[in-house]
Amino acid sequence: MTTTNDLVHQLDRQHVFHSWSRQGQLDPLVIAGAEGCRMWDYAGKEYLDFSSQLVNTNIGHQHPKVIAAIKEQAETLATVAPAHANLARGEAAKRILERAPRGFSKVFFTNAGADANENAIRMARSFTGRDKILSAYRSYHGNTGSAIAATGDPRRVPNEFARGHAHFFNPYLYRSDFWASNAEEECQRALQHLRRVIECEGPEAIAAILLEPIPGTAGVLTPPPGYLRGVRELADEFGILLIFDEVMAGFGRTGRWFAFEHFDVTPDLIVFAKGVNSGYVPAGGVVVSDAISRHFDAHMFFGGLTYSGHPLAMAAIVATLDAMREEGVVENAARIGDGVLGQGLERLAHRHAIVGETRGLGVFHALELVSDRERRTPLAADAMNEIKHALLAEGMLPFVAGNRIHVVPPCIIGEDEVEQGLATLDKVLGEVSAKYAA
Amino acid sequence: MTTTNDLVHQLDRQHVFHSWSRQGQLDPLVIAGAEGCRMWDYAGKEYLDFSSQLVNTNIGHQHPKVIAAIKEQAETLATVAPAHANLARGEAAKRILERAPRGFSKVFFTNAGADANENAIRMARSFTGRDKILSAYRSYHGNTGSAIAATGDPRRVPNEFARGHAHFFNPYLYRSDFWASNAEEECQRALQHLRRVIECEGPEAIAAILLEPIPGTAGVLTPPPGYLRGVRELADEFGILLIFDEVMAGFGRTGRWFAFEHFDVTPDLIVFAKGVNSGYVPAGGVVVSDAISRHFDAHMFFGGLTYSGHPLAMAAIVATLDAMREEGVVENAARIGDGVLGQGLERLAHRHAIVGETRGLGVFHALELVSDRERRTPLAADAMNEIKHALLAEGMLPFVAGNRIHVVPPCIIGEDEVEQGLATLDKVLGEVSAKYAA
Ligand SMILES: Cc1ncc(COP(=O)(O)O)c(C=O)c1O
Ligand SMILES: Cc1ncc(COP(=O)(O)O)c(C=O)c1O
Repeated sequence: MTTTNDLVHQLDRQHVFHSWSRQGQLDPLVIAGAEGCRMWDYAGKEYLDFSSQLVNTNIGHQHPKVIAAIKEQAETLATVAPAHANLARGEAAKRILERAPRGFSKVFFTNAGADANENAIRMARSFTGRDKILSAYRSYHGNTGSAIAATGDPRRVPNEFARGHAHFFNPYLYRSDFWASNAEEECQRALQHLRRVIECEGPEAIAAILLEPIPGTAGVLTPPPGYLRGVRELADEFGILLIFDEVMAGFGRTGRWFAFEHFDVTPDLIVFAKGVNSGYVPAGGVVVSDAISRHFDAHMFFGGLTYSGHPLAMAAIVATLDAMREEGVVENAARIGDGVLGQGLERLAHRHAIVGETRGLGVFHALELVSDRERRTPLAADAMNEIKHALLAEGMLPFVAGNRIHVVPPCIIGEDEVEQGLATLDKVLGEVSAKYAA
Repeated sequence: MTTTNDLVHQLDRQHVFHSWSRQGQLDPLVIAGAEGCRMWDYAGKEYLDFSSQLVNTNIGHQHPKVIAAIKEQAETLATVAPAHANLARGEAAKRILERAPRGFSKVFFTNAGADANENAIRMARSFTGRDKILSAYRSYHGNTGSAIAATGDPRRVPNEFARGHAHFFNPYLYRSDFWASNAEEECQRALQHLRRVIECEGPEAIAAILLEPIPGTAGVLTPPPGYLRGVRELADEFGILLIFDEVMAGFGRTGRWFAFEHFDVTPDLIVFAKGVNSGYVPAGGVVVSDAISRHFDAHMFFGGLTYSGHPLAMAAIVATLDAMREEGVVENAARIGDGVLGQGLERLAHRHAIVGETRGLGVFHALELVSDRERRTPLAADAMNEIKHALLAEGMLPFVAGNRIHVVPPCIIGEDEVEQGLATLDKVLGEVSAKYAA
């Protein structure tokens, strides 16, 4: 029996329970294979992947060196308990530390982003002896009990299993929560607001501020100049740790190894997942500063998981980070972002009234769509759905979130593919602009 | 440069942050490779794996069919977003459902055991509209914010991030919390106690009872006859869901596909991980009953994760479950457990005063070690440590927890290997018995 789209669709609908959805309304896209920035189904229809799946395939699909490394590790040793020492794990940790700033000395490995945040929070609480975690309303940190409580987006609300989490407003000039009219004002007011939250929650009760340097799922919200530096200063003033969640923004996405490098600020703990091995094997983790590492030399760390430092995941990290360096993947993301992609999106914003704002850097951009530019009215859900299906029909796999298209192709994308993607966006945005833009 | 134990040990100690430990006191065993029930280091020293790592390699190490399936999937498609439909995922869900009892229709996939419990709890809360989760003090459900709060063992205490969790005492005749002197009494009293906890916490506030059918990490605590049936009846009486955490006990470990099959009871949600693919690729999940599946056809499910249904993990599930069936792996676990292993452990208990009790079924056993049989005084930590190192020196990799040795080899283990392991245990227990037993 040959495999068909119908067969795979049916198998899925019959047996598989999906994330974030009503199970009765699903019509999943069938994917048979992929390479680089392209995916295809069993009927031979091809898609240009402008989503990187869930913004994780930074190195593109099926990179031959990473696939070879996974196969080789599978032949050597597929699994081993975390308590043992394993070559791939040591090598992976070493490579991650080589890409981190000075002042970091250990890596704790997890399976993904949520449990990486869990463990960063755990470390911060133990190290400081304090209880509370501050994080932003516009954020996503994962969906386990404490990570989801730390999360700010609406998916937190039905999932608030935890205590000691307080949220603050983060900067977002286009929809300012501070009545600001320019970036400088937005930055100053956001910092003043954060200071007030710290004072009101009690500085000596706060273990850490947990922050995506560039909030991703919330809308690729590049912070105004000076904001992250200001947060670091506030943290230092009150003896609070700073945790950067680099799960989506890290490992090349912004054109640097870590997004915080753009802002000349260093956190105490770096949380990663996704891009570290492009999600070829589930992996995440925490990069631990010297001071926090030393603390846990003598103090018990009350965290753990069966697959911490899983050999297959580790081998994929080693190969991914080596290949990214050898092939200049991070540099490519920077070049594309400053060049053809960033400029192309600016042009789209000029041409189509439906685009309220475009923002981002590297291969980490968002187009914010509005039905009324003046009032910045978010484009309605059914129009967004129409756009999504039109893009799919044109052979582009988009990342749609709320009233935004996140433009997040793999970091390896070439200029031709960017041009193709921009042309598709241009066509579809033209059609919907005519229909919906005021 | 050839790889040596020293090199790998040093890489680890320099860069890798470990679970559940003081980082300054670690001396991890170096593992270079493995096959079946054996592992070895770079110096050629061999170990008989009586731990199955963290009780996950049910099919043994490096099973050729599973390794081949991982390699093949890696060549086809290593990663894909959960929203898409993928052949390996549909096939994996189908195979799991084929092994579940009637009345289950969907599988939700996660990365491991903790996040599987998170999602079972999430489903139960949404389905019932109730808040509280009852679980046992003697239990381990994982280490993310709500799963750790549901956990009963002492690792919960520094990690209580969550609300709405209450704990009850579960049966453990050897150290009864109910002043019981036989199994029937222990069962009746444990059920009466659970009824009182339900009444006092408020039945209409309780979403689910979450329970390991045979608590694993807590000591392989086979429940007395009738207990799980009694729990099911209490749940039904009060409209409470029953969640069985089969992460450690499931997929062959007890000589059945699921441990609850020994007790003729069916839960509403089945949580799994580990044995489903022997941990060759991180995976876990929830098997969802028809009624709960139907609920989520119309209602939003507020859960998700980047690597839900990861293709490599799914391919490993398909190959593992097929190979286990073809090769009679579950039947082997049953035969070994009733035969040479179970009987051998009974003999050890007779021969050595230091063994207070032996219990378990299949390849899921524990030896409870005591310095005073009369008083059942748990053997002290340094004596346990001595035993662990003596077993390692004799070429056996044991699973030591508290004052117990959990005897948990892969389900594929042959009689010769069991005999070898028993002989090693006999020797070491003889030595320590002479030294420590009253
Ligand atoms: C910034 C950030 N943190 C954490 C997570 C959670 O990661 P995971 O889904 O792997 O648990 C995500 C997922 O999108 C994320 O974007
Ligand atoms: C019964 C049970 N549930 C859940 C877990 C947690 O699984 P994981 O470590 O994969 O998160 C474990 C781990 O040992 C377990 O034994």
